[in-house]
Amino acid sequence: MSILIKEVELNGVATDIYIENKYIKQIGANLPVTADTVIDGRRKAVVPGFVNTHGHAAMTLFRGFGDDMPLMPWLEEKIWPNEAKLTKEDVYWGAKLACLEMIKSGTTTFFDMYHKFHATAEAVEEMGIRANISSACFDQFKPELTEKSKQTIQKLYNEMDRYSKRIHFSIGPHAIYTVSGELLQWADAFAREHNVLIQLHLAETEGEVENSVKNFGLTPVRYLYKLGVLSPRLLISHGIYVDDDEIRMLADHEVKVAHNPASNMKLASGMHFKFQEMREAGILVGLGTDGCSSSNNLDMIEAMKLASLLGKVWRKDPEAVTADEIFQSATVNGAAIANLKAGKIAEGYLADLSLIDLNMPAFTPNFNFISNLVYAANGNCIDTVICDGKVLMQNRKVPGEDEIMERAAQIAYNLIKR
Amino acid sequence: MSILIKEVELNGVATDIYIENKYIKQIGANLPVTADTVIDGRRKAVVPGFVNTHGHAAMTLFRGFGDDMPLMPWLEEKIWPNEAKLTKEDVYWGAKLACLEMIKSGTTTFFDMYHKFHATAEAVEEMGIRANISSACFDQFKPELTEKSKQTIQKLYNEMDRYSKRIHFSIGPHAIYTVSGELLQWADAFAREHNVLIQLHLAETEGEVENSVKNFGLTPVRYLYKLGVLSPRLLISHGIYVDDDEIRMLADHEVKVAHNPASNMKLASGMHFKFQEMREAGILVGLGTDGCSSSNNLDMIEAMKLASLLGKVWRKDPEAVTADEIFQSATVNGAAIANLKAGKIAEGYLADLSLIDLNMPAFTPNFNFISNLVYAANGNCIDTVICDGKVLMQNRKVPGEDEIMERAAQIAYNLIKR
Repeated sequence: MSILIKEVELNGVATDIYIENKYIKQIGANLPVTADTVIDGRRKAVVPGFVNTHGHAAMTLFRGFGDDMPLMPWLEEKIWPNEAKLTKEDVYWGAKLACLEMIKSGTTTFFDMYHKFHATAEAVEEMGIRANISSACFDQFKPELTEKSKQTIQKLYNEMDRYSKRIHFSIGPHAIYTVSGELLQWADAFAREHNVLIQLHLAETEGEVENSVKNFGLTPVRYLYKLGVLSPRLLISHGIYVDDDEIRMLADHEVKVAHNPASNMKLASGMHFKFQEMREAGILVGLGTDGCSSSNNLDMIEAMKLASLLGKVWRKDPEAVTADEIFQSATVNGAAIANLKAGKIAEGYLADLSLIDLNMPAFTPNFNFISNLVYAANGNCIDTVICDGKVLMQNRKVPGEDEIMERAAQIAYNLIKR
Repeated sequence: MSILIKEVELNGVATDIYIENKYIKQIGANLPVTADTVIDGRRKAVVPGFVNTHGHAAMTLFRGFGDDMPLMPWLEEKIWPNEAKLTKEDVYWGAKLACLEMIKSGTTTFFDMYHKFHATAEAVEEMGIRANISSACFDQFKPELTEKSKQTIQKLYNEMDRYSKRIHFSIGPHAIYTVSGELLQWADAFAREHNVLIQLHLAETEGEVENSVKNFGLTPVRYLYKLGVLSPRLLISHGIYVDDDEIRMLADHEVKVAHNPASNMKLASGMHFKFQEMREAGILVGLGTDGCSSSNNLDMIEAMKLASLLGKVWRKDPEAVTADEIFQSATVNGAAIANLKAGKIAEGYLADLSLIDLNMPAFTPNFNFISNLVYAANGNCIDTVICDGKVLMQNRKVPGEDEIMERAAQIAYNLIKR
């Protein structure tokens, strides 16, 4: 299986890109090669596939189902009663819709924390992108649930051989207010032993910090430090409420951070994400959309714009969170967090990439491609997506997309009626 | 000229819409009428055309030409030297590109303040949308420039008979730090006499407030109050730095306000736009994108999302600036500010409307159409645009769009080389 992209723009220069066996094999003008598939790259630019470092894929089913509401009534009246009814088939179609939406907006890898692990994994397998999937666990500080959570994690890990290498396993303790310190420590040991990641919501709201101080006598990051679970295998989502010392703790232990500007804004969780301080401390900061019931789409290009604009306005500094910096978060940083040799258009890297249609007002004029991508465009500029060396979308159409949308919508409508 | 839209979704129900002579004539199921043009509305929803209440259209030419920079170096090094070189032809193509971009994202009316008035007016005339255009004036407190500005305004006003009724004239004093009190008072009297609007940047930055207090002894709104120029004919853009008393002054004089979240965020001007207080005081608040060199696109759907998300996060209230409220700002409020019987899909209203393609992930599922529009979609969901009873776009294509993009890009590249 080989692909040749002819005359595509890379850093402002037209070039050919030759892909063979999942990898970018050669980049250069007029490559003297033949390929199974040839793609005309003229009037298009190539970018690495985006890595969405935080989300709950199947929550596409709850898109627009309760907005403009305070967090607790929204969860208690809208989300939790319906999540309790979710079947494996529901999650499968919700995750397929999420994969479709991500492919259409140029994302080739995503992190996930949700229910019905295998439903999501099967959807990802079929859709052709990559995911790092965790099953959300909540032991609610009850020893019997702690035991059950450990067994579930162990069981799912053992079942991973049924999937291709595009699908990675991780552990998904939900948050420090729903998961006991014992389970977090067990997860940390399991992650070290098996070299897998842990996904954890952390320092997302002021209420979480207050509870942490009340219940554990420490702010969230300090609590994890005391538990001994800060490690290079830990990916925290949100991380808004952290002070300078906590940033240093995260950096010292090589903890990764997923920033989710749309969710943080829409749920009014907080705006003061310390992008610059984290970068300067050497923390790998990725970008995420969060789930569709809080964000309400999976568009990483929109997420880049939101992160940059929000970062500038709260700091009162138009030079904060530049287009180049946030593009890096959405691509190469995300790939590093996912332990992939991806996120760059370079020989030897995974062929996870998108072609962007430059024939749009957003890229007219095109003085600065990355500026236009981040500040003027949105996910709709993505024309072609390749992941793992296979073409997943061309001319903005993913095979089977109408059926996925139809089935997922029906599932969602039926779910809330059940 | 008549148009029949068959089976389009309006408030969740399929209906026909019959348009005749610029107006929506009839709405109802299975209308027993024939029309010159019949449009299949199935799997589409109809919304009023958006009204973009603040911008500088031809600044599309400077899209991405200097980002992530502090305001003054950006203006002094990038924008002003190039604006000084602008010819009428440059502005004409820049404005055509802006019109194209707005049509493609569902805007049918925009407010403009820029140079080369007739170039913008001619572009709007040809593109088929509506605009309220002003020539930016700066007298820099110099009496000879005050006189010259008055003459220019009078002259342009007298030349308006060359345009169709789609084009409205307004006066465009740039800001209180570039325009004398005398010119503002003269403009107010002229506006009253001729029943035209005044567009003015006001209370945009902390620096502006400090200067106002220093130079005039008063904050911006109080200064205008003292000058006696607060009136129903005044449209202020930004209006971030206003206190409760100033909101009362604006409301008492029926001043209109244009909120520009993207620009306020990207330039780090400020985030605390008092949407709720202004609404409660009875002020008509419209939504705007500002010019493409500060925002960097003209997508009103994105502007709705930004306004809502920013309003929620700074107030720490997920119920602030709801989807319905901001949709109202972008449509019916904008139309009221523009003095148009538009902004609603109702019989007797101007036929300025768009059809939205529902066959997209952003509208799947579609529990709440306005939520999906504001929080999940972007300008790309617009499939068909009708303005003044004429079809301007179908199937996402505007006739001549490739030439407009090509010419505008060339103009921009040549401009900065000159």
